[in-house]
Amino acid sequence: MEKVGFIGLGIMGKAMALHLLKAGYSLSVLEKNKAAQELVEAGAQAFATNKEIAEQSDVLITMLPDSPEVEEVVLGEEGAMAGLRAGSLFIDMSTVAPATARKLDELLREKGIEALDAPVSGGQVGAEAATLSIMVGGSESAFERARPLLEVMGKNIVHIGPAGAGQTTKACNQMIVGMTIQAVAEAFALARKSGVDLAKMREALLGGFAQSRILDLHGQRIIDQNFKPGFKVKLHRKDMNIALQTGRELSVPLYGSAQVAAQMDALLAQGKGELDHSALALLMQQLSN
Amino acid sequence: MEKVGFIGLGIMGKAMALHLLKAGYSLSVLEKNKAAQELVEAGAQAFATNKEIAEQSDVLITMLPDSPEVEEVVLGEEGAMAGLRAGSLFIDMSTVAPATARKLDELLREKGIEALDAPVSGGQVGAEAATLSIMVGGSESAFERARPLLEVMGKNIVHIGPAGAGQTTKACNQMIVGMTIQAVAEAFALARKSGVDLAKMREALLGGFAQSRILDLHGQRIIDQNFKPGFKVKLHRKDMNIALQTGRELSVPLYGSAQVAAQMDALLAQGKGELDHSALALLMQQLSN
Amino acid sequence: MEKVGFIGLGIMGKAMALHLLKAGYSLSVLEKNKAAQELVEAGAQAFATNKEIAEQSDVLITMLPDSPEVEEVVLGEEGAMAGLRAGSLFIDMSTVAPATARKLDELLREKGIEALDAPVSGGQVGAEAATLSIMVGGSESAFERARPLLEVMGKNIVHIGPAGAGQTTKACNQMIVGMTIQAVAEAFALARKSGVDLAKMREALLGGFAQSRILDLHGQRIIDQNFKPGFKVKLHRKDMNIALQTGRELSVPLYGSAQVAAQMDALLAQGKGELDHSALALLMQQLSN
Amino acid sequence: MEKVGFIGLGIMGKAMALHLLKAGYSLSVLEKNKAAQELVEAGAQAFATNKEIAEQSDVLITMLPDSPEVEEVVLGEEGAMAGLRAGSLFIDMSTVAPATARKLDELLREKGIEALDAPVSGGQVGAEAATLSIMVGGSESAFERARPLLEVMGKNIVHIGPAGAGQTTKACNQMIVGMTIQAVAEAFALARKSGVDLAKMREALLGGFAQSRILDLHGQRIIDQNFKPGFKVKLHRKDMNIALQTGRELSVPLYGSAQVAAQMDALLAQGKGELDHSALALLMQQLSN
Repeated sequence: MEKVGFIGLGIMGKAMALHLLKAGYSLSVLEKNKAAQELVEAGAQAFATNKEIAEQSDVLITMLPDSPEVEEVVLGEEGAMAGLRAGSLFIDMSTVAPATARKLDELLREKGIEALDAPVSGGQVGAEAATLSIMVGGSESAFERARPLLEVMGKNIVHIGPAGAGQTTKACNQMIVGMTIQAVAEAFALARKSGVDLAKMREALLGGFAQSRILDLHGQRIIDQNFKPGFKVKLHRKDMNIALQTGRELSVPLYGSAQVAAQMDALLAQGKGELDHSALALLMQQLSN
Repeated sequence: MEKVGFIGLGIMGKAMALHLLKAGYSLSVLEKNKAAQELVEAGAQAFATNKEIAEQSDVLITMLPDSPEVEEVVLGEEGAMAGLRAGSLFIDMSTVAPATARKLDELLREKGIEALDAPVSGGQVGAEAATLSIMVGGSESAFERARPLLEVMGKNIVHIGPAGAGQTTKACNQMIVGMTIQAVAEAFALARKSGVDLAKMREALLGGFAQSRILDLHGQRIIDQNFKPGFKVKLHRKDMNIALQTGRELSVPLYGSAQVAAQMDALLAQGKGELDHSALALLMQQLSN
Repeated sequence: MEKVGFIGLGIMGKAMALHLLKAGYSLSVLEKNKAAQELVEAGAQAFATNKEIAEQSDVLITMLPDSPEVEEVVLGEEGAMAGLRAGSLFIDMSTVAPATARKLDELLREKGIEALDAPVSGGQVGAEAATLSIMVGGSESAFERARPLLEVMGKNIVHIGPAGAGQTTKACNQMIVGMTIQAVAEAFALARKSGVDLAKMREALLGGFAQSRILDLHGQRIIDQNFKPGFKVKLHRKDMNIALQTGRELSVPLYGSAQVAAQMDALLAQGKGELDHSALALLMQQLSN
Repeated sequence: MEKVGFIGLGIMGKAMALHLLKAGYSLSVLEKNKAAQELVEAGAQAFATNKEIAEQSDVLITMLPDSPEVEEVVLGEEGAMAGLRAGSLFIDMSTVAPATARKLDELLREKGIEALDAPVSGGQVGAEAATLSIMVGGSESAFERARPLLEVMGKNIVHIGPAGAGQTTKACNQMIVGMTIQAVAEAFALARKSGVDLAKMREALLGGFAQSRILDLHGQRIIDQNFKPGFKVKLHRKDMNIALQTGRELSVPLYGSAQVAAQMDALLAQGKGELDHSALALLMQQLSN
């Protein structure tokens, strides 16, 4: 069984690391991390630096907030790249720019290290239930090597294409989710002001072409006015920025995505960044009442 | 069994009328209509004017292109209202403005006639298979009276609320469908230019929060570059206008819906109004290539 | 000197009519109008119906809120068309849809009556100071005949083209004005939150390519937080609808205009429709604070 | 007279540097620059590194394409910061992010060096005619010290506020210019398809509230279909990104600016990035024909 290093023990990362331990993998984590104690008690070993973790690992997994953190962990002083051996495998499960994924792949490949970008969808719930969707970019061989580990953490695991393809797919996922929430938010705002029963409308619409998981789940949230996260506006806004910057680099005009990002900025300005992204509907209610 | 009049024998209307005949209803239609002959052969009776049809009917159903046509058929010279008796039931299954539905309801109610707005979703396929979703506005009693007939034509039949609520729900449906197509179109344009395999991406996204019937069906259309209608851009643009005008009347800012309507205008300007509404993806491809 | 009928004595219409009286024209107005007494004291004659006014007039001028009012005055019962003689001239100075202007031109032409669409820009101030800009559509001969009258009411009088061209130009004017206000509103919101002195910024920007009459006048309004009308949001929203419907008829995608219209809807929803249209900046402040 | 270093001898930088030489300033430039020979012939001295130029200079001016170039020149190896003495003055006349300006100000201040952000508006024509508008951020004392030099290069020179305020103002300028062009582009597209004479419309609109320098100059360009730069789409897109990223950092929703940026992406995708930014009108024509 491959020895695994796991860097990034936030709410999701911790749950994912625990699944790996439970599946029998030997796991290295960072001492200074808050969750390290809990993982050590579950059987992990703790080390002082990212480089040391890398030295212990056949496979190194990162689950971090954004591109700069990933670059710092891998390329920074006492960073993971300095510790990884030729033949080892690096899997970044963070959501970062496709350009970052391709850059890391190139740098690691030069040292004989394989890399995968493997961002996830499904949130805290999916991480805890090991039902994450995982979108993977990188070589076929690296994907096959990673598959047993990924299957411990997720359920719907798809190899999309070469380096960066996983992150591009995640960016597309976030664009679609954001715009679909905005679509539902506008429709519900119109219906509300028309005096239409939202619950009956949701039921009717779920039976036709307007059906979506967002209409189902977030539609119910809007009816309940339940905006506890779930997935926070401020994190979704970060992901929209990845999409928009990728669109800019490739000259793809993202009209609707840009508009949704502006709506999220309006929520953030009102101190609502910690709410669930379904709060786009809250903004639409405010703007129409 | 109630005697039924059916006005509006277009592709969908004809299929719906045939289902009623097959279910044993006696049916009156308009002589001058192209499809009348076919319906007469199937057992319908043909009359010269809308008023005469109305005189023969306990329940009068209309399935017409837009508000002006419905108003003309009901309120015009030799129109249906002149023929309907107190106690009869009028069901407009066309997609028109909620304001039109409420206006007709009010006028008919004054004559002791009950009215329902009962627009449908599901297109030609749904009409032919009798699997239409039907969103109904009007009184509870009128809905119960209409239910047996509606069940002959559709499957997912929901009584949403009072007069106009059916049309409002349909407008919301069209907004959500339009914006979801645009969401998928932007994502696929970005993925295409990134060199990502669209089929694999669609598969991966269907497993997560981006799932929708549009991503499933229209996503496949985009992959196949199959823009044969289905539901035409020009008809969807008409429906978006209903939504936008309703938003204007109620002061509900419909940012995303307005943007999608502009994209549809760009398609119409290029002579692509007869294509399926998934052609929003075609526009996004053009704008990014 | 031609005998003039003037229908529509609102704030602007009254001022315009008084200029005509002062210039020596004999003037007919509608008895039931609130401002009629004032005009009669200034020398006008009052009549009971639009038709009677038309019968008295060589030139009939209308200055009304919207298309339906103009159609009612001209085509309604006891309407102006019934009173106008062949050889007379009809000038509609209201802001209405280009399609309405063309329809009236056609109907009047059949009776040997010439028509001009001659909407104005400049507001109450311009009407009172007789400095209105007037954009004229119709035949060259009708324009030359109208010119002496128009010069009594305005200053910058341009014959744009055939019937409807005046209204199209006015619609374009309102689109540009609306979007320029939104541009200034976004820039000032960003500057404000950056801690930049708005007065100094305005001064600097007026010296370069960002210069506009809107940056000058409305920019100062924003600095002063002075949103007293001026030109009301709700009237500008009506004009944006004319532009958007014209765009729809012609399949011209009006991305930015549609977005500005949505912002105006948000203002209207908050009960701010009576404020000056520079209140788009107020909305941007709210959305960013 | 202060000794000046000038780094960034592009089309605009060269013209600005020549004005300084002509005004009698002693000037240091970079040897490897293409334009260096011409400046040396006009009296400048050439050096091998940015650090050496800085060592020779009381005032160091940069005029570079973007933030990364400015950071590299100042903070990179053999960079300017290593050569600047306490008491010297750094003036960045490039268009960069306000955040970059504040960061450089902070770093330089720690070494006793004063800094100004002083981006310009007016393009090649303004640089050559010494009529640039200059928007300045930084301390009052630094501004007074820089004023004589700035007056050699420009005409409308405004001290807006502290470090970053010049760049924020420039970002606002670019937002307003971009959105005003889009406004004119939409109006002209609608007018063109309506069959309205664009020259007459422009004339009429310049007399009212729609007046702007953009309607005047770019409006004429659209009429002439003259899209030779001027200011290139691709450079304006870069500046829109500065605005949008600043909006994101401050949570200011920039609806219209984001939309214009998307339109520019569509132009870039079609290989039209080298055209004048008035080519937004070309896109609107394409989308409506």
